[in-house]
Amino acid sequence: MARKTAVIRSDIAFSTADSITVRGKDLPNEILGHMNLGDFAYFQLMGKTATLSQSRVFNAMLITLVEHGITPSALVARLTYAGAPESLQGAVAAGLCGLGTVFVGTTEGAAKMLYQALADTDVDADLEKIARDTVAAFRERKQIIPGLGHPLHKPIDPRTPRLFQIAEDNGMKGRYITLMQLIGAEAERASGKVLPINATGAIGAICCEFGFPWEIVRGFGVMARAIGLVGHILEESKTPMAHEIWHRMEDEASTHLRK
Amino acid sequence: MARKTAVIRSDIAFSTADSITVRGKDLPNEILGHMNLGDFAYFQLMGKTATLSQSRVFNAMLITLVEHGITPSALVARLTYAGAPESLQGAVAAGLCGLGTVFVGTTEGAAKMLYQALADTDVDADLEKIARDTVAAFRERKQIIPGLGHPLHKPIDPRTPRLFQIAEDNGMKGRYITLMQLIGAEAERASGKVLPINATGAIGAICCEFGFPWEIVRGFGVMARAIGLVGHILEESKTPMAHEIWHRMEDEASTHLRK
Amino acid sequence: MARKTAVIRSDIAFSTADSITVRGKDLPNEILGHMNLGDFAYFQLMGKTATLSQSRVFNAMLITLVEHGITPSALVARLTYAGAPESLQGAVAAGLCGLGTVFVGTTEGAAKMLYQALADTDVDADLEKIARDTVAAFRERKQIIPGLGHPLHKPIDPRTPRLFQIAEDNGMKGRYITLMQLIGAEAERASGKVLPINATGAIGAICCEFGFPWEIVRGFGVMARAIGLVGHILEESKTPMAHEIWHRMEDEASTHLRK
Amino acid sequence: MARKTAVIRSDIAFSTADSITVRGKDLPNEILGHMNLGDFAYFQLMGKTATLSQSRVFNAMLITLVEHGITPSALVARLTYAGAPESLQGAVAAGLCGLGTVFVGTTEGAAKMLYQALADTDVDADLEKIARDTVAAFRERKQIIPGLGHPLHKPIDPRTPRLFQIAEDNGMKGRYITLMQLIGAEAERASGKVLPINATGAIGAICCEFGFPWEIVRGFGVMARAIGLVGHILEESKTPMAHEIWHRMEDEASTHLRK
Repeated sequence: MARKTAVIRSDIAFSTADSITVRGKDLPNEILGHMNLGDFAYFQLMGKTATLSQSRVFNAMLITLVEHGITPSALVARLTYAGAPESLQGAVAAGLCGLGTVFVGTTEGAAKMLYQALADTDVDADLEKIARDTVAAFRERKQIIPGLGHPLHKPIDPRTPRLFQIAEDNGMKGRYITLMQLIGAEAERASGKVLPINATGAIGAICCEFGFPWEIVRGFGVMARAIGLVGHILEESKTPMAHEIWHRMEDEASTHLRK
Repeated sequence: MARKTAVIRSDIAFSTADSITVRGKDLPNEILGHMNLGDFAYFQLMGKTATLSQSRVFNAMLITLVEHGITPSALVARLTYAGAPESLQGAVAAGLCGLGTVFVGTTEGAAKMLYQALADTDVDADLEKIARDTVAAFRERKQIIPGLGHPLHKPIDPRTPRLFQIAEDNGMKGRYITLMQLIGAEAERASGKVLPINATGAIGAICCEFGFPWEIVRGFGVMARAIGLVGHILEESKTPMAHEIWHRMEDEASTHLRK
Repeated sequence: MARKTAVIRSDIAFSTADSITVRGKDLPNEILGHMNLGDFAYFQLMGKTATLSQSRVFNAMLITLVEHGITPSALVARLTYAGAPESLQGAVAAGLCGLGTVFVGTTEGAAKMLYQALADTDVDADLEKIARDTVAAFRERKQIIPGLGHPLHKPIDPRTPRLFQIAEDNGMKGRYITLMQLIGAEAERASGKVLPINATGAIGAICCEFGFPWEIVRGFGVMARAIGLVGHILEESKTPMAHEIWHRMEDEASTHLRK
Repeated sequence: MARKTAVIRSDIAFSTADSITVRGKDLPNEILGHMNLGDFAYFQLMGKTATLSQSRVFNAMLITLVEHGITPSALVARLTYAGAPESLQGAVAAGLCGLGTVFVGTTEGAAKMLYQALADTDVDADLEKIARDTVAAFRERKQIIPGLGHPLHKPIDPRTPRLFQIAEDNGMKGRYITLMQLIGAEAERASGKVLPINATGAIGAICCEFGFPWEIVRGFGVMARAIGLVGHILEESKTPMAHEIWHRMEDEASTHLRK
């Protein structure tokens, strides 16, 4: 059992009796009162302060992911809260568990696709050709292209042009956003379908402009939705829907068994 | 089975094909690019825009709860990520599940205590007497007073004076913060122990100044910590500690069984 | 920072290169093929083998908690699976988060009530008087008596007489079950309402007959429901309901906002 | 918004005022007292009663997954319980979230591999050739073969031969188990490494013999581990390790920052 011991180490934060330091800054005196929550999220994650432009784009991106009405995650949080109102944290946690490959997690797929498409390319790369090749490859594998299409927001997801505009206004529109736009156009052409770049596609592209590792991109949706779910739980505590949903569904689901 | 049907209703947000509206504002055009994440959290939750003063205090309060180093919640998120790196959302969710009555959830207890102590009182109430009565009641029930004491941050939790100062600078120091300070002083006097108002006590008092229902106060810690946990997962993906913790603990825990 | 180090120790299980030992038994050779799942749950938890009578009662108790149709926990698991089908574990976890004080967790409240009522009593104690005092105390505090009443199963929860009969048939009906029955009768008399002992009340009483600590009683519902939720996820993967629920609820919840 | 409405339907269970029916059987009278927990899990999931042979193999398979000492999932459950002891369900849920592709979820990968390898083959298929082709394909893609190898249990995982023997004794050893054994042998030959079939590989193969859909195979590990985690939480409530782990790790992780 001569296992080699590794070191336990974290560079994010540490505390002493009279101080808390996050990424080298004194939390009470250098951060509290000097940053907003979005900027602190950037700082805690990246270990450096967001520029004003980065702050605008990053905050807009996170806000986009906070709230989208009565989503499955909101329903899950509300149904969980109805059973365990004393454990608000469990209701939020339950609501987050479904942010996987089908819903919010598609930001990750979009970012991964864009990073891979531009890996080993330089600034002269023919983005139109790359878009055609990317779409062709997904179509050949019969895979859905991440970040395209929306059941409701057609022909345009209204969040996407606004997010891209904010990125452009702040000097953060680069090759990844352009490629995402070209992929969207090419996918519509090749499929003959209406395939708007949805919010998760836009955010995936913006994450690439920031240089966030694709493995962490899903995390922005998770942290943002945690905020939104608390709002839903507060509303549920005042004007509940969970019990009504439960009874309706239970009744309908078993109607055929009662005959 | 003549159940009376209730209405399913939410006032937070709704979407049409070309719009998303949150609390009456158009998300793409009136919110994105115009708010930071903390202010949007306030807006989504309360249904009204934070004033500049409220924004400063609310952002400071949330930031305080994002990060406190290698906490149990950070360990849980890292250990979970090691087993299911494809499900980042599950690692964050797991980390949130422990924010209960022992750790972050104590904000709730502090807010509840303060609201109850000042219920049915007017502005002339004798806060010193209320503080003495509150401390005496907890001591008689042999209950821990929520929001007081810290294993490391002694004799002062450095976050507390800074948060109270930010509240005061922004005109938000009222009777709840004063009462919390008086309760802290009285508890130290009565017990003879060093009992600093910790960050959760300070935040509980600030939540009362905002008028947030105590049932939702724990939610601020939950949403804030969700942000911090994503940072820990990103670090874990690069410089992991989970496997080392596992193997050390497994070895040590079963040493006595191997003999 | 001269913290005193405590020992990390567990007595449940340990492994060597060629063995796995649980509670002193060799897992592959002494347990696999020799126990059923319910008996192994008892053995892992209690560190001793269930007698045949205990096995019958314990398995019946756990089975009771596995499945109750389209419950909130089943809805949560299904809605979570729809968003993250690659993370079945997250869907089960989400479904478990709501097993708190309102639903399955009431087993805990019932067990706690019974243990407290019979603490410091001997076999000659007047159970009818204790039942009257217990009901009176709950009524005076305006608290709901745990384990009584059911929205659907009236005037009798069909699981309760069967569970009590199985306990009696196996020599496990003692003072706790009797007291629960007396409390149920007294609560109906005092309130004038139909208040059947529900399954969680029956199980709380049976847990007391076993001597399980009340702090762990909720765990039986949690482990049992984890089994049931996998069945719901399998059905959801074949005949889904999550998307339909989502769209119906989203439409109805925002109808008033669209006007 | 002319959405076509789908029907909400479940075939698992339904209740009336005086009955609960699961998969067509009356729960109180036909199931309680007549089945053990493992058999009821099979019945609820599959909608038919396990034969005696199936019962033996199924119970053995589930028991194997309940407990493996101080695993990451046990650590997560214990660390979560320390923060929210009032929410036992959240501690179990947190512990389950990490049962993904790295640990217990590998049962799923093994089952999928075996199903795919034998799809469109008949009983005369050359299993040795299929094993060689399967191993070669994984090696060419530089992918780890699911269900092989173990950091501790070498050269044999003691659970595997016992599980295969129980399957054989009960007439359930077929082509899937044989193919798994051949793949294990071929992988050792091709790589020159010691690659025992681990418990998740054995269980993946047995799930194929049962005909369980591979999408649900991970669920067996999830339901089984939920049982084991309750045992760890009970032990943590009596002889805790969570705070000690937390303080040790926090100290060590930040040592380099304190200098």
